[in-house]
Amino acid sequence: MPANGPIDTLIKRISALPGLGPRSARRIVYTLLTRRRDLLEGLIAALQDAAQNVGTCGTCGNLDTHNPCRLCSDTTREDDTLCIVATLSDLAAIERARIFKGRYIVLGGTLSALDGIGPDKLNIGLLESRLHNDPPQEIVLALNATVEGQATAHYILDLLQSHQGIKISRLGQGVPFGSELDYLDEGTIAAALSSRAMY
Amino acid sequence: MPANGPIDTLIKRISALPGLGPRSARRIVYTLLTRRRDLLEGLIAALQDAAQNVGTCGTCGNLDTHNPCRLCSDTTREDDTLCIVATLSDLAAIERARIFKGRYIVLGGTLSALDGIGPDKLNIGLLESRLHNDPPQEIVLALNATVEGQATAHYILDLLQSHQGIKISRLGQGVPFGSELDYLDEGTIAAALSSRAMY
Repeated sequence: MPANGPIDTLIKRISALPGLGPRSARRIVYTLLTRRRDLLEGLIAALQDAAQNVGTCGTCGNLDTHNPCRLCSDTTREDDTLCIVATLSDLAAIERARIFKGRYIVLGGTLSALDGIGPDKLNIGLLESRLHNDPPQEIVLALNATVEGQATAHYILDLLQSHQGIKISRLGQGVPFGSELDYLDEGTIAAALSSRAMY
Repeated sequence: MPANGPIDTLIKRISALPGLGPRSARRIVYTLLTRRRDLLEGLIAALQDAAQNVGTCGTCGNLDTHNPCRLCSDTTREDDTLCIVATLSDLAAIERARIFKGRYIVLGGTLSALDGIGPDKLNIGLLESRLHNDPPQEIVLALNATVEGQATAHYILDLLQSHQGIKISRLGQGVPFGSELDYLDEGTIAAALSSRAMY
């Protein structure tokens, strides 16, 4: 098929998004262009609306139409507990659990030597501001149980050494809901045994 | 997390695209909104460009900036062979093989009683115009080897009964390149045996 300017450009733009490749992008573009009214026009409007009205919260790094964001300005939330997450998706995952009622810092990623992500690429400044202006009683390090997540946790633990009196916790490790033991790795089972609870 | 107008609207719009669900859409939206310059702005511009400049070819149903499209107006292609495909993705897949040099009709889908797609939802009119104005010598029915694809093929075969003298073919069936017999279904192996070739 001969090169076709706007279509190929759009396929390239869409295949650059996370989780999409050239084939899925092509399928999306064809669907958009054959269903203009109900898909394409609404998507363009929604992207423009978000581009104009959504920004990064200067307090926690969350995305919102307000700055400070709704989570930071919600007076019913507790100021004394601060949860540190790597990404906005992680923040959304914790909010879905509806159990944490404190504040957040969104780092914007995890340390990764391989991908060239050092502390300067993360929102460490937001954490330091919070520690300086209003140190919390407890910090929950809600980072992924991966090599990068744990490297990031260690970096923050080092940073917190100069702040005595703040309790630091991490997410509990164990058997996920609905899982079968046979399919879990031995590290998870060992952690679940170590953190076993009495009936 | 409290409802957040533009972000939630955008997630909903993106999760309506083929192959995407709420979780992948959320990830895409967060990436777009944290990488405005290199992703979001370019995507909006590319969508607008495509919306303004790309249309459906009135001859074959392909998408292009020109009408008739480049495939229909390419004088080096053969007029006497017409390939009928269900979708634009199928057209692109056949073009990637670089062996077919005729013209196309893109039906825009396949018949599906389950999804309420009858002949009136497909570009049967384009096929009938072509048959009326310039009947080809051969029609290749390049439809999926699925129930819906084969139902559509049968519908078109019925339609072609009143057009004597047109050769009608379908894609060969057999073992795909790079496949292992052990993983193929018995229907494919039976078809491959029936259409076996001599060395």
